[in-house]
Amino acid sequence: MQALRIPPAGTPELAGRIRHKIDRKTKPLGALGMLEGLALRLGLIQGTDSPHIHAPHLLVFAGDHGVAAEGVSAYPQEVTWQMVMNYLAGGAAVNVFARPQGLSVDVVDAGVNHVFETHPRLLDRKIAMGTKNFAKEPAMTVAQCEAALAAGSRAVRSLSVLGSNLLAVGEMGIANTTSAAALMARFTGMAAEACIGRGTGVDDAGLVRKREVIRQALILHRGAATPIEALAALGGFEIAMMAGAMLGAAQERMIILVDGFIAGAALLAAQAIDPGVLAYCVFAHQSEEAGHVAMLKHFNAEPLLKLHLRLGEGSGAALALPLLRAACDFLNQMASFESAGVADQGAR
Amino acid sequence: MQALRIPPAGTPELAGRIRHKIDRKTKPLGALGMLEGLALRLGLIQGTDSPHIHAPHLLVFAGDHGVAAEGVSAYPQEVTWQMVMNYLAGGAAVNVFARPQGLSVDVVDAGVNHVFETHPRLLDRKIAMGTKNFAKEPAMTVAQCEAALAAGSRAVRSLSVLGSNLLAVGEMGIANTTSAAALMARFTGMAAEACIGRGTGVDDAGLVRKREVIRQALILHRGAATPIEALAALGGFEIAMMAGAMLGAAQERMIILVDGFIAGAALLAAQAIDPGVLAYCVFAHQSEEAGHVAMLKHFNAEPLLKLHLRLGEGSGAALALPLLRAACDFLNQMASFESAGVADQGAR
Repeated sequence: MQALRIPPAGTPELAGRIRHKIDRKTKPLGALGMLEGLALRLGLIQGTDSPHIHAPHLLVFAGDHGVAAEGVSAYPQEVTWQMVMNYLAGGAAVNVFARPQGLSVDVVDAGVNHVFETHPRLLDRKIAMGTKNFAKEPAMTVAQCEAALAAGSRAVRSLSVLGSNLLAVGEMGIANTTSAAALMARFTGMAAEACIGRGTGVDDAGLVRKREVIRQALILHRGAATPIEALAALGGFEIAMMAGAMLGAAQERMIILVDGFIAGAALLAAQAIDPGVLAYCVFAHQSEEAGHVAMLKHFNAEPLLKLHLRLGEGSGAALALPLLRAACDFLNQMASFESAGVADQGAR
Repeated sequence: MQALRIPPAGTPELAGRIRHKIDRKTKPLGALGMLEGLALRLGLIQGTDSPHIHAPHLLVFAGDHGVAAEGVSAYPQEVTWQMVMNYLAGGAAVNVFARPQGLSVDVVDAGVNHVFETHPRLLDRKIAMGTKNFAKEPAMTVAQCEAALAAGSRAVRSLSVLGSNLLAVGEMGIANTTSAAALMARFTGMAAEACIGRGTGVDDAGLVRKREVIRQALILHRGAATPIEALAALGGFEIAMMAGAMLGAAQERMIILVDGFIAGAALLAAQAIDPGVLAYCVFAHQSEEAGHVAMLKHFNAEPLLKLHLRLGEGSGAALALPLLRAACDFLNQMASFESAGVADQGAR
């Protein structure tokens, strides 16, 4: 992967200008709560006090996981490709939530264990027919991991060239909360126990297996020293490609709308590669997955939605998009005390 | 006010049918979190397993408060009418948030201390030029309160006749958090202290005055025995009219999208008049106003958004509307395991 050059997001001067613009709107100081901080962030990312969202795009990265053989998921592996077909047919939650908002949804086959026919909404970036079982060996080679990162980055640059300034990221991959939890433990240094949850709803016996698999894998791969080596050892193709997409989006100064737990694990890897990526991120929601609260705290992030979702796909990102538009709209369209002839707090 | 006849929302049979439909969608059981409970509620309100939102309408009820003379707000009273002008000009937060969603916004002058020129978006339902100061006498007469309730109910029936099936309620009225806090203490039986917050941002001295005013008013008006007497003693014209609007909406089986703290106080009054209203309500957000968490708990409600808003106007309701649409859309448009050919959890 070539050297990254993520530009800083905004300047102190611009931050001051945006804050002043927010404070002159016809509302008490701070009354729009989190939308004010969101408007500030979007302005800083775009380098303007009039941010806007254009041609937002959601990429669903899909990949299969060798570790599924350990019985860590409630669903069989073929659900990965079956759900890809569901996304392409427009019948999944993410499609339904994205459609009324003009949010385009494409699926990226990063490494699904299935041969798909070509489809206009499917990007074939398959690295292999699923990863190896990281309970026994590295999930992928370092070369595969670098190829996945580069493919993710390139895919996003194509969107940027076509005028999109917002990338939403989602994923599909049976057993990928196991990979995500292992990556979280590795990249945050937290105890594995704090990173592990039930994913799509594994039962108690499955949860015990999941814990044991992750515990042993962290020991087995403790020699993976660099971020890319760790991502190769414990990751998934869709997670690595998603990390590359985030890095590419930040280089293009795009807004990155981060979905849930697994997208967050990809961001941990991206952050380890280049910490500058974080300034371009907006966190869509806090999921029900057990480790997500601690992960968001690690990012020092307050997510926009807390709807107890645990679906992935980018469904939470799609649901949060109207709030990003609202943040832009109030900054751009709301009247100021001066323009509306309303007395402000000082007038009392 | 004529005898109310709020029909029950849904049947156990329908609830079972909607739950089954939700559980066959292509997602793990319960994975859409709060959206699943929301879809169930919307279906029960409309008596169908395929709810939809048609011609949603937001009414901003505006009124002035005699108690403003006690120095309980950070803003002068003329901000009420100035903000009404801002809504009519389309420059306020609620306009900006409603516009992209096709949410119509009308202002109801329930009792603003200002003479407005006619405007197509302004409904003149003025009871008087503001309430009396309830620190010294009842805010309004029982006859005025009944007139306000009836006017609110009638306004909503007109919307229903025109095809709207969702009423969002918001408000504007300098000093109306003082009225709302007093009503909350009266209708919930909670200690006044637990109901009082800073409203639009009153300073420490103002907060002390606000507490003292409410404490004394609750003693002064302790003889107000019926819900309507209590609402007359401590309420505002916009709050009473909003309560009437909610009762009218429930009678028409419309979805009631409740904004923040003051709309919640109006709902407390409406609930005291007819508890059946609650089954028609969706709670848009949890505001920063100190008493709102306790109020939502009283309603046994989990609000959709927690964005630390404290603006009123219906701004939180407008921001929550996309989530109601998403709940309808997933119920109506998402594929089932059968239709998509996806293996479900039992297939493992």
